Parts: sequence; structure tokens; C-alpha cells
Amino acid sequence: MKIRKTIAIDMDNVIADIESHYIDWYEKEKGIRVDKKSLSGLPETEALPDKTAVMRYLFTPGFFRTIPVMTGAKEALQILSGNYEIFIVSAAMQFPQSLSEKYQWLAEHFPDITWKNIVLCGDKSVIGTDYMIDDHTKNLDCFKGKPLLFTASHNVHVNHHVRLKDWNEATVYFENELRK
Amino acid sequence: MKIRKTIAIDMDNVIADIESHYIDWYEKEKGIRVDKKSLSGLPETEALPDKTAVMRYLFTPGFFRTIPVMTGAKEALQILSGNYEIFIVSAAMQFPQSLSEKYQWLAEHFPDITWKNIVLCGDKSVIGTDYMIDDHTKNLDCFKGKPLLFTASHNVHVNHHVRLKDWNEATVYFENELRK
Repeated sequence: MKIRKTIAIDMDNVIADIESHYIDWYEKEKGIRVDKKSLSGLPETEALPDKTAVMRYLFTPGFFRTIPVMTGAKEALQILSGNYEIFIVSAAMQFPQSLSEKYQWLAEHFPDITWKNIVLCGDKSVIGTDYMIDDHTKNLDCFKGKPLLFTASHNVHVNHHVRLKDWNEATVYFENELRK
Repeated sequence: MKIRKTIAIDMDNVIADIESHYIDWYEKEKGIRVDKKSLSGLPETEALPDKTAVMRYLFTPGFFRTIPVMTGAKEALQILSGNYEIFIVSAAMQFPQSLSEKYQWLAEHFPDITWKNIVLCGDKSVIGTDYMIDDHTKNLDCFKGKPLLFTASHNVHVNHHVRLKDWNEATVYFENELRK
């Protein structure tokens, strides 16, 4: 049996569309609809006009549980799991209330991913997969496998990692990797 | 700055004395005090006279939160953290109710270990540390670093890994590793 290569896949901004969720919660709280384009290039935690909003939401019970799924993520993970061993790896420990919410969110939206392939951690330097898809350079810079930057508004100016702009591009990338 | 080597340290049967907790809960439930020696060589989930007891306890809210600390673990981790980067790595995902309990347990008993160094996962094959201390061969057999078997009643017959019989022996082992 051929051993399948492993991919660590982040949650927020990768399979969970947390930017849209920030904007929706901000509108609900402040009555102001922020244009997603205005987030471009800003640090994630300072992306909204009220600079305290993002951190407040991240510590609010129910926030993580209700994030919408990223466009194309379900279909892409279905395809990738045919050829790769997929691990969902989320830096959840900073937000302890998110632990059970992230588990429940995955059970609802990605029921084919079993408990064996879920990792909730802090510092991702401990992760030893072959690939890592993440939106944060802090997680990718010290990764020993192949790091892949998933595009998010906060990382548009980063240019020192291979970039995947969406799940369509990610699927094509991993198809090409199989041919190598 | 010298990069410190990393150690993945398991929770149950390593820093958390889950065997004593099984015995205490069994006595509370059944009125029978089981001798720890009678667990020797038995699979963990079948260690108590009522073979359903361990799995029931593992899914009972409050069980993980109240496990006593393993003898010597606090002192040993204090010493080890002076020379190594320590990650607590627990296969908690099988028991979703344990996620927040394990986080709270660590905050109470090991407050110096920050959220950055906690990993709650399923399959530990994803872990890429230099050393792994664990009581289960399933976690150690595919580990790419140095696997170290921490003695528990269920693993007394295992003889294909370097064994650490307690935290005193573990501390000596890692002192010797520094001299290599």
C-alpha cells in the first residue's frame, strides 16, 4: 500500500470564511456594512473600523460555531481526501471556548473528517505533515514540509510563500503534485 | 541562540494518573477497591472487573477534569522546561467533552504551560517533535523522532521501545541526552 502524503489544513480563513463572519457580526452589532475590500492588507485583528471588534468576537461564545464554510472547501476536501491524508489543524488554544465549537462545526460541515484527523493546537511548529495550507505566515515560516499560503485579506502583501488564492487553485496544485 | 529540542508529552497515564482515577471512580460506583496490581498487562479499557466501566468513565463529564496529577510530573516538567521545549500532546478528540476539561486541568496543575504549547489531537502521527513520551505503542510506533514508553499497567509487556518507568527516570534520561 502506498503511503499517502499528509496535508495540514487550517480552519479560519481557509475552510471557514471568518472574514465574512466578521463583517456580518459587525453589521449586526453596529449597523454598518463593511466592504470586504477595505480589509485588504490590514492586520486581521484590526480589520474592522472599531479596532476592538475582532478580538471581542473571537472570545464571544457562539462566534466560531456559526462561521460560514469557505467557498469551494467542501468539494475540494472531498477531492483531496481521495489522494492525500488530510488533517484539520487549527490554532484554537488561544480561544478556549472555541475548542468544542470547532469540534461541533467540523462535525456539522465536514462529517467525513473523523476525530483522528483533527488537531487543535497553539504553536503549529509541532506539526510534521508533508504540506500545510494556512493563511498566517507565522505558521508557515518554520514549517518543515511544503508551506502553502491561502489568500486572505490580511496576507495580500506576503510574497515569500507559494500562494493558493482559493480552493479551485488548491485542487489544481495538488493534482499537479501527484504527477511529480 | 541555541534551538531547544522539543518533547511531546502525553497527558493520561503520563502527567495525569488516570489509573488511580479509574480505581477511585470504580470504588465510588461499585463499593469495591480494586488493587492496582490487578490491572497489570490488561488492555486499558478492560482493566476493571466491570468491563464497561472504563469507557463509561471516559465519556462522563467531569472525569478528565478531576484526574490526580502523576507523581513527580510537576517537578520533572519544571526541570525539563529549562532545557527543552515542552508540548503537551493529548489524543483528546475521541472524547469531545474532554477538550475543555483538559484545557482547564492543565491551567490548574501546569499553569506555566501556555496555550501555545498544548495540542489536543486524534492520531498522533502528525506530531513532529524530537521526542515523544507516551504510554501507548500506537502513538510511538510511527513516531519519527525518539519514542519513549512511559510505564503504565497496560504496557508492562511491551519491549520494543525505550522505557521510562517514572518521572524520576525520565528526568535522568533527558539529563543524559543533553550530554550527547
